[in-house]
Amino acid sequence: MQLQLSTWHEVQDYLKTSTGVVIPIGSTEQHGPNGLVGTDALTAEIIGRALGEKIGCLVAPTISVGMAVHHMDFTGSMTYRPSTLIAVIFDYVQSLARHGFTRIMFVNGHGGNIATTNAAFYEIYNHRQSDPGKGNQPVKCLLANWWEGPETRKLCADLYPTGHGSHATPSEVAVTWAAYPDRVKYMEMEPEIAPTGRFTDAADYRRRFPDGRIGSNPNLAKIEDGKRLIEASVADLTTTYREFLAA
Amino acid sequence: MQLQLSTWHEVQDYLKTSTGVVIPIGSTEQHGPNGLVGTDALTAEIIGRALGEKIGCLVAPTISVGMAVHHMDFTGSMTYRPSTLIAVIFDYVQSLARHGFTRIMFVNGHGGNIATTNAAFYEIYNHRQSDPGKGNQPVKCLLANWWEGPETRKLCADLYPTGHGSHATPSEVAVTWAAYPDRVKYMEMEPEIAPTGRFTDAADYRRRFPDGRIGSNPNLAKIEDGKRLIEASVADLTTTYREFLAA
Amino acid sequence: MQLQLSTWHEVQDYLKTSTGVVIPIGSTEQHGPNGLVGTDALTAEIIGRALGEKIGCLVAPTISVGMAVHHMDFTGSMTYRPSTLIAVIFDYVQSLARHGFTRIMFVNGHGGNIATTNAAFYEIYNHRQSDPGKGNQPVKCLLANWWEGPETRKLCADLYPTGHGSHATPSEVAVTWAAYPDRVKYMEMEPEIAPTGRFTDAADYRRRFPDGRIGSNPNLAKIEDGKRLIEASVADLTTTYREFLAA
Amino acid sequence: MQLQLSTWHEVQDYLKTSTGVVIPIGSTEQHGPNGLVGTDALTAEIIGRALGEKIGCLVAPTISVGMAVHHMDFTGSMTYRPSTLIAVIFDYVQSLARHGFTRIMFVNGHGGNIATTNAAFYEIYNHRQSDPGKGNQPVKCLLANWWEGPETRKLCADLYPTGHGSHATPSEVAVTWAAYPDRVKYMEMEPEIAPTGRFTDAADYRRRFPDGRIGSNPNLAKIEDGKRLIEASVADLTTTYREFLAA
Amino acid sequence: MQLQLSTWHEVQDYLKTSTGVVIPIGSTEQHGPNGLVGTDALTAEIIGRALGEKIGCLVAPTISVGMAVHHMDFTGSMTYRPSTLIAVIFDYVQSLARHGFTRIMFVNGHGGNIATTNAAFYEIYNHRQSDPGKGNQPVKCLLANWWEGPETRKLCADLYPTGHGSHATPSEVAVTWAAYPDRVKYMEMEPEIAPTGRFTDAADYRRRFPDGRIGSNPNLAKIEDGKRLIEASVADLTTTYREFLAA
Amino acid sequence: MQLQLSTWHEVQDYLKTSTGVVIPIGSTEQHGPNGLVGTDALTAEIIGRALGEKIGCLVAPTISVGMAVHHMDFTGSMTYRPSTLIAVIFDYVQSLARHGFTRIMFVNGHGGNIATTNAAFYEIYNHRQSDPGKGNQPVKCLLANWWEGPETRKLCADLYPTGHGSHATPSEVAVTWAAYPDRVKYMEMEPEIAPTGRFTDAADYRRRFPDGRIGSNPNLAKIEDGKRLIEASVADLTTTYREFLAA
Ligand code: NI
Ligand code: NI
Ligand code: NI
Ligand code: NI
Ligand code: NI
Ligand code: NI
Repeated sequence: MQLQLSTWHEVQDYLKTSTGVVIPIGSTEQHGPNGLVGTDALTAEIIGRALGEKIGCLVAPTISVGMAVHHMDFTGSMTYRPSTLIAVIFDYVQSLARHGFTRIMFVNGHGGNIATTNAAFYEIYNHRQSDPGKGNQPVKCLLANWWEGPETRKLCADLYPTGHGSHATPSEVAVTWAAYPDRVKYMEMEPEIAPTGRFTDAADYRRRFPDGRIGSNPNLAKIEDGKRLIEASVADLTTTYREFLAA
Repeated sequence: MQLQLSTWHEVQDYLKTSTGVVIPIGSTEQHGPNGLVGTDALTAEIIGRALGEKIGCLVAPTISVGMAVHHMDFTGSMTYRPSTLIAVIFDYVQSLARHGFTRIMFVNGHGGNIATTNAAFYEIYNHRQSDPGKGNQPVKCLLANWWEGPETRKLCADLYPTGHGSHATPSEVAVTWAAYPDRVKYMEMEPEIAPTGRFTDAADYRRRFPDGRIGSNPNLAKIEDGKRLIEASVADLTTTYREFLAA
Repeated sequence: MQLQLSTWHEVQDYLKTSTGVVIPIGSTEQHGPNGLVGTDALTAEIIGRALGEKIGCLVAPTISVGMAVHHMDFTGSMTYRPSTLIAVIFDYVQSLARHGFTRIMFVNGHGGNIATTNAAFYEIYNHRQSDPGKGNQPVKCLLANWWEGPETRKLCADLYPTGHGSHATPSEVAVTWAAYPDRVKYMEMEPEIAPTGRFTDAADYRRRFPDGRIGSNPNLAKIEDGKRLIEASVADLTTTYREFLAA
Repeated sequence: MQLQLSTWHEVQDYLKTSTGVVIPIGSTEQHGPNGLVGTDALTAEIIGRALGEKIGCLVAPTISVGMAVHHMDFTGSMTYRPSTLIAVIFDYVQSLARHGFTRIMFVNGHGGNIATTNAAFYEIYNHRQSDPGKGNQPVKCLLANWWEGPETRKLCADLYPTGHGSHATPSEVAVTWAAYPDRVKYMEMEPEIAPTGRFTDAADYRRRFPDGRIGSNPNLAKIEDGKRLIEASVADLTTTYREFLAA
Repeated sequence: MQLQLSTWHEVQDYLKTSTGVVIPIGSTEQHGPNGLVGTDALTAEIIGRALGEKIGCLVAPTISVGMAVHHMDFTGSMTYRPSTLIAVIFDYVQSLARHGFTRIMFVNGHGGNIATTNAAFYEIYNHRQSDPGKGNQPVKCLLANWWEGPETRKLCADLYPTGHGSHATPSEVAVTWAAYPDRVKYMEMEPEIAPTGRFTDAADYRRRFPDGRIGSNPNLAKIEDGKRLIEASVADLTTTYREFLAA
Repeated sequence: MQLQLSTWHEVQDYLKTSTGVVIPIGSTEQHGPNGLVGTDALTAEIIGRALGEKIGCLVAPTISVGMAVHHMDFTGSMTYRPSTLIAVIFDYVQSLARHGFTRIMFVNGHGGNIATTNAAFYEIYNHRQSDPGKGNQPVKCLLANWWEGPETRKLCADLYPTGHGSHATPSEVAVTWAAYPDRVKYMEMEPEIAPTGRFTDAADYRRRFPDGRIGSNPNLAKIEDGKRLIEASVADLTTTYREFLAA
């Protein structure tokens, strides 16, 4: 059930049976020579909405821009400053909490969001718990990366024993291709598997990873893989979400 | 051409021929008994992307949550504080300007965004022009409401001589139904045409407009209207965008 | 009744009969070759205080600097960033609301303030309505431009059928001259009527409107016009304010 | 020379001979049973403008609201949060510095502003000196309390050997009465001379100083005193300003 | 070499041979029945300074308060909001970078700081890389948790095969006791090994972990362990720091 | 009693007998040719902790970085922006107030902190008093400079009839040497007594005071003086703190 495609009465009805909600959060940033700029937002949205369809949970609109300061030397990348992203998440949660939502799970598509999102949760908790007379009910937030559940990890390892890497990975590319099959594009890359390593700011990232990939060979991606990854991730997130509701 | 569905090399190529970009901006808020919570984000996105397809301009990811403080007493509504929305727009523009974009047109779906978006533009202009040594190239921002061009206005007036109103209007509902035909839903409403008037905060809004509509009868909406409205709006915005590029 | 010229006991007494208050808000920015830098603050203050004298409403101190980022390439212009102006208005309203004021009308002298002021109102509404336990009483804010009432518009049209324009207008110049007759100054200008058009940042504004005027011939201004405009605007604002108190 | 009453060309001319400017800064807050709410803004403005008339320096518009958190339990008092006042002063100075002003003297009417204004100066210095490439020219800021020069102090001591106190003082009341003679008002007060002491927040202030005065007997004020105090303060500030220009 | 115990000439000399610096960062929060409130700040400081003594790197003053929102229902705990901690780290780094430091390693004592510190690094990178004309040299930041190097982990596992846990651990308690032997205190605890699990806000934390510990038995701590842990951690951090300087 | 060296149960017990707490606040900045960069933080910490030992009051962790924008052209100096320091103090006080502390005394080692710290107090008071429903208990904050009590002033005057000055003074140097005797260092300085005067930003400061000292001859400092000064200051602060508790 997508919030955007519901009426407010339908949301009111939903709250009678559940106070949980899912928010896809991604990023808009380079994903190597053949990966889409929207990869991280698309994967979060595809999987978040598939979860919503499978288990009927409400899915809020995607946060499409994330914390991608280190990608900014590649054309087309966008970023929120961490302080902006904290404000964005704060307002998402405060809005939903006002209506009675108490379990807010972010389905995340971008590693670069993890630190800032967790910082945002504590900005929210601090606000809600600080002033004694406010009377806010407590709210719980959770960040769930779509790739980190056991089934998804196992499938990734099976599909891509080498060349998975950590940015512009074949798994994330495959998920986007499953949803946007007209975007499939194979290209020669040099080297076939990109280098790995750490990075700091945008200039450092670009110097170390000249075509944007880290450790990956996105040419390994296949639409069929993407379908299986979506299914695996939805299965993992179903467990995560249900445990979260029960916590 | 959607930014999310492009590679960074494709964006780099795009910039060789144009430095313009379109950003849909909407809202997530109640739209009366049968309008979708995402109406304002969906209309902006539908029309912004249709514009992108027609004239080939780049379309950035939609800002789906807007300034909807006054809708917050209706379940499911979400809002950014004006200060958050300013930060969001600031970061969108700074990100794109870094890559060389100089004409940034926001296709807007929500009246409540207009003031804050214009304030944001001047926060940006001030930042870029303030410190002499920064060397930032100038950037121009424009807010274009999808409903305000001459063809669109005329079509609205023709289609809905009465009962158009200003919130949960049949025209915006029709646009969303054209894109999401499974969401068509007609319901009895009382009164048939909602009351009109001004409002301040959320409690005041709810008291004056108990089912969320202002001055409208959304049951007048038809899928066919939506298709024509999209076409009219795209035609209007084509002119607006081209004049903006030339300015 | 000016707040600055009252004792706190007098304000306490005032609140027994009315919870309304008027705040003049203007700008400090170039107004063409013969207009005063303070024009927008002076017009708001002159008319706001005249309203206070006529109907006995309380008038708070003028906000003399506004949002004038686009005027900053003309010497002497001052500006608040939009974010600062939001904070200023927030604190004005929070201060007055604490004492029990519930209807706060800003008499505005500067078009560039409109967007930011409206954004500020929603920053305030959001703050006051957000946390359930706070116990804040609701407050209503209104922005009333001194030139937009029916009598004032009509008089402007009658006095200046051509050459009124939108910045450094003969009407605003006339209002300041009515109050500061020693500042009357006529100068040759080239062209007689300034160009019109849109603008973005300060450099763009200066390039398009080299002497600062937009569409106007301020040499048309006369002290006598100013007196009549003040009277017309006070009449219009009397209606606006009374309706606002009753809303 | 008042900025508000000058044209931008006149300011441009002024800058050819001086890069100094004066900004009156005060407060809007209770001043005891017969003192005006605007006392601190009025005194700063009266004396700042008198200085401008005497020595020809440019006088910017008054900052009428100051840091008066501790007065907020008395009706009619207004306050900026310290963080807002820092932003206000920041924008005043940044605006003026952009045009080439390098010596910015605040004529202050309110003890409660001193800490925050000095904090603001360092927020400004830090901004201007932080990023090496910015190319900002240095700017110097100074806070000058109208009452602290040697002639003014001496005159205060002569006029009010007892009952001067530190809030709602006869000297500040006298200065306002000199400019607004129709506001002269003598009232019985109990005790004749108010108590003295320290305070923290608004509740603490109100409890210790129930009618708002601290250590003063404002009934000692006379219009004639006010005239002499203005003259003495202008003389003192003339010296301060000239030394500041030369520093 | 401690910054606090050096003269500015000595720092100037240091910079001729190295542009690296170490900053201990911890927290001030409950650490169970017998752990010290300052445990996380003390461990970071003890180990950071020991590193400085061993390899001669400069050690800046400790950030003693961290992000401990979830501990705030235990008396004595202090916290920065994440947004404050970002500002603190921003200013630390900007200050040091101004003098030419380019490798800034935070030795961290508190898991709750990790997310916010990493967010802060990207707030800094974004600031320094955003405006083209600024001319800032790049700076690299690194967060190194004192407990995460291979030698330290191995020693922990050897010393505490059970009862180590994740808060108020015997290892961190031992480190503080090694430095403050008069604080050694053994107490009966119930249960001997505290429960484990996740938590959200302060109320949730307190409910799940009533005496403050998570999964630990701090009575296992010994002064002798602490000495060995300090040595192991300094060895690990020596490697980390040297690799960081070389990166 | 140091907070960092206490358990949370001990803090809980402390609160049964006192709701007062002391926070040392200093700065990290150049202190002339032989003074330590940490002088202001060390003096505040040494004296604050000595006070805690003498009278048993709780001493929170030192705020080691202060507002030292004007020292930033000397290597090794660090600074918080005033806005950051306000946030730091805000969070310190909010954290402690949550547990029931109501008298919070900052023992200050740095003149440059005074303005910002006092601004911070009013940011806090405003927050706590603003929203009627919050239910916060009032809290009182006090800034006590270690050097300003009568015994300390007298001792300074006796010890250093000339050459005390206002920055890198022999008294503050002596206090640090008393605690860190291995840091004693005498150096030739030219001139023997540094110049005096006012300053604005970092460049201005450096130009006027090339070796960092203002008006002082730190070679006058002796360890023995430091011991006496600590004792005198602790005596003064004992009185200040007790009066503050009783206020
Ligand atoms: Ni990705
Ligand atoms: Ni709508
Ligand atoms: Ni105007
Ligand atoms: Ni006063
Ligand atoms: Ni710990
Ligand atoms: Ni010092």
